[in-house]
Amino acid sequence: MGQELGITVRKDKKPSEWYTQVVKKAGLAKYAEIKGCMIIKPYGMKIWESIKENFNDKIEETGVENAYFPLFIREDQLEKEEDIVEGFDPEVAWVTHGGEKELEDRIAVRPTSESVIAPYMSEEIRSHRDLPFRINQWSNVVRWEATDTRPFLRTREFLWQEGHTAHATEENADEETMLRLEQYQEVIEDHLAIPSVLGYKPEHDKFPGAKYTTTIETLMPNGKSIQSGTSHQLGQNFADAFDIAFEDEDSETQTAWTASWGLSTRTIGALIMAHGDDDGLRLPPSVAPHQVVVVPIYQEENKQKILEYAEEVSNKLEENSVRVKFDDRDHRTPGYKFNEWELKGVPLRVEVGPNEVEDDAVSTVRRDTGNKEMGVDRGEFVSEAEDILEDIQESMFGELEEYLHENIRKADSKNEILSTIGKNRGYVKTKWCGKEECEEEVKDQVAAEIVVLPFREDSKPATIQENSEQISGECAICGEKAERWAYFAKNY
Amino acid sequence: MGQELGITVRKDKKPSEWYTQVVKKAGLAKYAEIKGCMIIKPYGMKIWESIKENFNDKIEETGVENAYFPLFIREDQLEKEEDIVEGFDPEVAWVTHGGEKELEDRIAVRPTSESVIAPYMSEEIRSHRDLPFRINQWSNVVRWEATDTRPFLRTREFLWQEGHTAHATEENADEETMLRLEQYQEVIEDHLAIPSVLGYKPEHDKFPGAKYTTTIETLMPNGKSIQSGTSHQLGQNFADAFDIAFEDEDSETQTAWTASWGLSTRTIGALIMAHGDDDGLRLPPSVAPHQVVVVPIYQEENKQKILEYAEEVSNKLEENSVRVKFDDRDHRTPGYKFNEWELKGVPLRVEVGPNEVEDDAVSTVRRDTGNKEMGVDRGEFVSEAEDILEDIQESMFGELEEYLHENIRKADSKNEILSTIGKNRGYVKTKWCGKEECEEEVKDQVAAEIVVLPFREDSKPATIQENSEQISGECAICGEKAERWAYFAKNY
Repeated sequence: MGQELGITVRKDKKPSEWYTQVVKKAGLAKYAEIKGCMIIKPYGMKIWESIKENFNDKIEETGVENAYFPLFIREDQLEKEEDIVEGFDPEVAWVTHGGEKELEDRIAVRPTSESVIAPYMSEEIRSHRDLPFRINQWSNVVRWEATDTRPFLRTREFLWQEGHTAHATEENADEETMLRLEQYQEVIEDHLAIPSVLGYKPEHDKFPGAKYTTTIETLMPNGKSIQSGTSHQLGQNFADAFDIAFEDEDSETQTAWTASWGLSTRTIGALIMAHGDDDGLRLPPSVAPHQVVVVPIYQEENKQKILEYAEEVSNKLEENSVRVKFDDRDHRTPGYKFNEWELKGVPLRVEVGPNEVEDDAVSTVRRDTGNKEMGVDRGEFVSEAEDILEDIQESMFGELEEYLHENIRKADSKNEILSTIGKNRGYVKTKWCGKEECEEEVKDQVAAEIVVLPFREDSKPATIQENSEQISGECAICGEKAERWAYFAKNY
Repeated sequence: MGQELGITVRKDKKPSEWYTQVVKKAGLAKYAEIKGCMIIKPYGMKIWESIKENFNDKIEETGVENAYFPLFIREDQLEKEEDIVEGFDPEVAWVTHGGEKELEDRIAVRPTSESVIAPYMSEEIRSHRDLPFRINQWSNVVRWEATDTRPFLRTREFLWQEGHTAHATEENADEETMLRLEQYQEVIEDHLAIPSVLGYKPEHDKFPGAKYTTTIETLMPNGKSIQSGTSHQLGQNFADAFDIAFEDEDSETQTAWTASWGLSTRTIGALIMAHGDDDGLRLPPSVAPHQVVVVPIYQEENKQKILEYAEEVSNKLEENSVRVKFDDRDHRTPGYKFNEWELKGVPLRVEVGPNEVEDDAVSTVRRDTGNKEMGVDRGEFVSEAEDILEDIQESMFGELEEYLHENIRKADSKNEILSTIGKNRGYVKTKWCGKEECEEEVKDQVAAEIVVLPFREDSKPATIQENSEQISGECAICGEKAERWAYFAKNY
């Protein structure tokens, strides 16, 4: 691969151009003809399918069933939940013609399916025995974003899942909201190896109509935060508006409590940014389409022997459930292959040349650290490959975890907040009174906002009881009584 | 379940109402607020996911990669392949507004992604080494059907896969077209237990722009044929229009050959109709979300003992990889449960009452035949359950295969074609000259058309060479030289 095919800018110098190049050159996605839409290429699609499968298994094990709701929503349906409409109106794409005929009423392309799924729940739920009622949809949704779009991070059409659940009690709705958030954490931390901060969104920034919104935030290397999943406790607002009620054990009619939660292809954007480096993508083994690539290095005279040996290594790895790619392309040089698989972020490269064959060995190069080990005994390597991959996974997480902790800085006054964000970006942790005005004062000056109210000061997830932990002291901005810790950050 | 919850019409008397009732009462789908759209409910979704997984495994094993293309297509893109536009224009839904702004140019909601994937292939394919190039998409598509819509069978939005491939030679494109058709046959016959007829569509009925179109047809109990998958050899038409070219081994630029193939949620409609009976759905074990339902039959005094025993049976089955549902609902009677699971088509019911517990046995009822076996030794049953399910699968296929063969009738003259269709429906096999006029003569009088030109007289799939087998004799309608065997039928 010539220089022009590799990444030509540094990640820290030009993060935006770096991102665009990685998306394109690693074969993840490309821009579609329609502005703001993307084509997800096979390599990107494999990553999405892996995230999907990982999360889908978790929700299926915890009582959620998949369904499919229509792409189109009648305008009056959408309007029934006014808060939602208010939130999405400027972003709705409208269908006005079917074939050659103008429709009597224009029809919305779903920006979310809340307003279709709520009436569905209303019809399906009769008795307390139908609760908890849990449904999920994997689909495309459309939001006609006006601002600058980026593949995965902000596109007019994206893929996501939206889960919708109904419960008999508020406590159950709380538990559901937290369960899904914790499952997002498992996806983001254990599968994608990105450490996260869990917490609430500020009251004024919650999902329209929600009682509260929780978020999983991840910190990108450029010091900006990205929301990587969100879970809402919707109170009885939707249930009231859409008549989601049930007969309780005493045959009394009760209003249900609902929750909803979503995760989108945006997580792929976070994955690219969190782990990528100047050579391209770096994928944690858990989500990598190919965990190991085997590259044979041969001349014409030893070609057959080396190819056979390399293929054998590859087969052995496959027998051990390693996802392996045997790159036996004859028209590419080993150097080209090294660069290409580095660009595509394959966690571990195995090189097999004449020396390796002679010594019954392999040489390996880790994508995360670049560490090369020459002449590792073949049998030993095959049996330890899974451990090596596990170590790469943990090490990639550890690297970012260190970065995260270094980039949560405490500030006790408005000036300190401003200067810390101005100097270091990252999260600025501060005591906050809960008033939007105090946030606005900061926002106006540094374009950073409160991205999360962490469940606990140390940012680890907690039970509902712990989540509502109160703090002592004063708001760093206005000096009034503080309600919670808040994390300010610039964000996506 | 009261009478009103079961199916209230006979399948043979009122097939259309029967179908609607099964779809609704078995919990497969329901009508959405938007006319012609449906909500696929969890039970229906599990069936689609099973079909999807079954086919997806096959195509992945044979070199196909999944990708995702945008929902929206620019009008000028769509128009580039005029044949397609001509085919879809009256059915396209148009987006004209994004948020509050009118768009400069209206945008199509994809009726198929041919016109987006072809330019993609043009960009991705450079060299003969990129061929065969195989891409597939699982997505929703929209066709603004004016005529009466039915869940699964004909909806304005449906789910499908569309595969698109490019090849170096015509022979390779032929092979691809047949390979995918054969994989559809495996899905339809082996997974859904519906026998099929494979063959070509008549020249005048092929996909616009295709060199030829192949189809997999299945015969419904009402004697109508339904297309359950289709695979097109597109010649070089699309490659010419969209400049899909490659450099061959001699560095000469060559035009590629392309193929495309699709399977949709319509197959669920075929599944329902092919196997259902007056009591509701009947599912072949391979695709059934629950293969076995275990129903405990108890009084208050023996409840605990029976529930434990029944659960144990259920667990043992699960250990043997049987998909089992243990129906321990306390507020429903066994009779209600029997009816409900019959309605939902679970292949095998296991009953556990006091006698069974005493004898260390179970009683079983097959959904396909209604056969009941009392007091089968429990251990024996558990170890044989998989065989029983296999037997049900084969027996359901066999039943329909017999029906299919009985309903392929030969006719040697136009009058014989007309009277045979009028009397028996099914397929009427006849020699045909290849002229549309001859088909029209029949069509005008009995609303039946040529649904398939079978690859061979016995309707089994064959190699490309055998497919082009010529026949002797005269067209049954005009008496001129016959070209092929043709099957006339009424169809969906």
